[in-house]
Amino acid sequence: MMEGTVVSESTTIIRVAAICGSLRRASFNRGLIRYAKKLCEEDISGMHIELVDIGSLPLLNTDLEIDGGYPPVVDSFRRKILEADSILFASPEYNYSLSAPLKNAIDWASRPPNVMAGKSAAVVSAAGGSAGQRSQYHLRQVGVFLDLHFINKPELFILGHKPPKKFDSDGNLIDSEIQQRLKELLLSLQSFTCRLQRGNTNTID
Amino acid sequence: MMEGTVVSESTTIIRVAAICGSLRRASFNRGLIRYAKKLCEEDISGMHIELVDIGSLPLLNTDLEIDGGYPPVVDSFRRKILEADSILFASPEYNYSLSAPLKNAIDWASRPPNVMAGKSAAVVSAAGGSAGQRSQYHLRQVGVFLDLHFINKPELFILGHKPPKKFDSDGNLIDSEIQQRLKELLLSLQSFTCRLQRGNTNTID
Amino acid sequence: MMEGTVVSESTTIIRVAAICGSLRRASFNRGLIRYAKKLCEEDISGMHIELVDIGSLPLLNTDLEIDGGYPPVVDSFRRKILEADSILFASPEYNYSLSAPLKNAIDWASRPPNVMAGKSAAVVSAAGGSAGQRSQYHLRQVGVFLDLHFINKPELFILGHKPPKKFDSDGNLIDSEIQQRLKELLLSLQSFTCRLQRGNTNTID
Amino acid sequence: MMEGTVVSESTTIIRVAAICGSLRRASFNRGLIRYAKKLCEEDISGMHIELVDIGSLPLLNTDLEIDGGYPPVVDSFRRKILEADSILFASPEYNYSLSAPLKNAIDWASRPPNVMAGKSAAVVSAAGGSAGQRSQYHLRQVGVFLDLHFINKPELFILGHKPPKKFDSDGNLIDSEIQQRLKELLLSLQSFTCRLQRGNTNTID
Repeated sequence: MMEGTVVSESTTIIRVAAICGSLRRASFNRGLIRYAKKLCEEDISGMHIELVDIGSLPLLNTDLEIDGGYPPVVDSFRRKILEADSILFASPEYNYSLSAPLKNAIDWASRPPNVMAGKSAAVVSAAGGSAGQRSQYHLRQVGVFLDLHFINKPELFILGHKPPKKFDSDGNLIDSEIQQRLKELLLSLQSFTCRLQRGNTNTID
Repeated sequence: MMEGTVVSESTTIIRVAAICGSLRRASFNRGLIRYAKKLCEEDISGMHIELVDIGSLPLLNTDLEIDGGYPPVVDSFRRKILEADSILFASPEYNYSLSAPLKNAIDWASRPPNVMAGKSAAVVSAAGGSAGQRSQYHLRQVGVFLDLHFINKPELFILGHKPPKKFDSDGNLIDSEIQQRLKELLLSLQSFTCRLQRGNTNTID
Repeated sequence: MMEGTVVSESTTIIRVAAICGSLRRASFNRGLIRYAKKLCEEDISGMHIELVDIGSLPLLNTDLEIDGGYPPVVDSFRRKILEADSILFASPEYNYSLSAPLKNAIDWASRPPNVMAGKSAAVVSAAGGSAGQRSQYHLRQVGVFLDLHFINKPELFILGHKPPKKFDSDGNLIDSEIQQRLKELLLSLQSFTCRLQRGNTNTID
Repeated sequence: MMEGTVVSESTTIIRVAAICGSLRRASFNRGLIRYAKKLCEEDISGMHIELVDIGSLPLLNTDLEIDGGYPPVVDSFRRKILEADSILFASPEYNYSLSAPLKNAIDWASRPPNVMAGKSAAVVSAAGGSAGQRSQYHLRQVGVFLDLHFINKPELFILGHKPPKKFDSDGNLIDSEIQQRLKELLLSLQSFTCRLQRGNTNTID
């Protein structure tokens, strides 16, 4: 095989759809996604993150589906998820579980055909209390039905309000240790996604 | 004490706020609440059920709170929860967890001050798959933060679509065995609520 | 009613069976129980804690039950649970869930007749990672079947190994803030247990 | 590459360590593993299942570890897990969670170095109540820490005692529909394991 024809792995771009479970403008969780996006633009090659808006989705009600069709805003959301290879969830913790906006987005995505099926996934959280743990394990259970393949490690749980300050007043991540841990999580997601995609080939010779 | 002055237990009315996690018009879960309401009107004395609408609540976004105040539709919802002694959840199962509309209602109710705190609660489900089990255990975990006291037994999980037909096309419960089990669940909720209320008195002699 | 016949509430002793999920000699979780026991002896009246050994129970195997009878060591364990009003769990976290020894004790207790049924309960944890949170929510789900009534608040999660030192090398609790929080948890358990017991009276006049 | 040197996929044998969470001799869950083993011997090529005994493991107690070494029976168990590519759990449901013997085996396997790390996994259940669902989702959460990669689908939940008879009195699986579903689950595990192993190769050309 000539060198010129080699399609190296690094030219494959993994498209990641990122969903932020908080609708608050200065949300720490949205700040995590912004920083992850920046990492992919400047520091990690082969991965592209797009934040997908979920704030304009209506509350899930299957009566809104007409002849199997979805409202335009839902359709547009579902198309963005479908086109992605991987999902990055930024999941706050509301009342020891997923936030309603995040669950709402997931519920719309799961309507037939489930547009999340078979993708790789990772989750990060900035929250109080358990730092998002209770939310993440509920999300992982949800992922079994969705047929998402979550990375196991590293996990990222951030006590958003605990000093020292980790986010500025606009929700931007300013803590360098967490920036590094977020990078490691993205690299793990990239590696696992590649592994699942490569492994999907039926011939190995 | 003279017989005439005895305030019998049956004159205390337990006010139950019922929340249906599905917004679908012909929802089986709403049908369960309708039947529960009817039972309290015709068959169970001392208990009153009111279905509280959650379909017009906006998606949870704390930016909608102005100076600690809530949008009028949220305020109205929260007031109805606050006035109740007890909560009856009809919880479908979406993607192995709570439905988004139910979680959304809970998240608004939990905003300070948490209007569900200290109340008794019960949950019923009509769903496919696990018949709602996966949803109910997530709800019970949510209840720890909310400080709800759920009854443990009986649990009610209904495979809504499995023959024989349990609901008519409008979502009305027509299965007599389930009607009976629903009655037993309400009696258990009534009994547990009374126990918690009576126990709250510091003097018993 | 004559004053002399009044049985005041303070003379009712709540008997608490305490179970430690770690068998390690210097277990921090056993240290929490020891301190709780001491609090009841010196500082909290009306509550008595007994640590119930679970280390000598065989691994759950229903083939060990002969003619509905249990092995003597199991019988003795079950009797101690049955005689208690309330259960205090000290639950470490092994692999994001209950420890095997704790689950084993619970499984033996649940064999017919379930000797935990109807009791009040509380749980404390010293652990790494989530400080026991993942373990406690699994335990609470187990409690639904057992028909335990857990207090919701306060919850107590202790990062056992994180500085400053909270336990000495024998596992004794030496951190005064945690000592205080443990006391508050016991008072909450006492209060909730009394409420359930008082409320159980069928006549209120 | 010459044709003669091609190592075809079918010659790679996936070694599956199977663990039965019930110690009962006539356990339905052990019957599921026996039938899975038979399927691999007669019907599915490239996969070998070995039932690993867990009934003789002591209750987890880290005081039993001497100088970082494990008791011989633990060592032998851990070696069998380490040598496997994949884990098949047959998980009954005790008190809405994992059985104590299964959790005990997992806890020993997780001791450093965690011998389950990175393997693929699947779970089947025969149980009452939820047919094992509550147990399986707890197991999946445990799997996050263990770094197990569970297949998402198909899931297999069997109401063991519900007519028609699915197991004979020795616990052998005799229901042909469930036999077929078990086969599909094994094929899914095989396919996912191959995908993870193939994907692990860094060069694919």
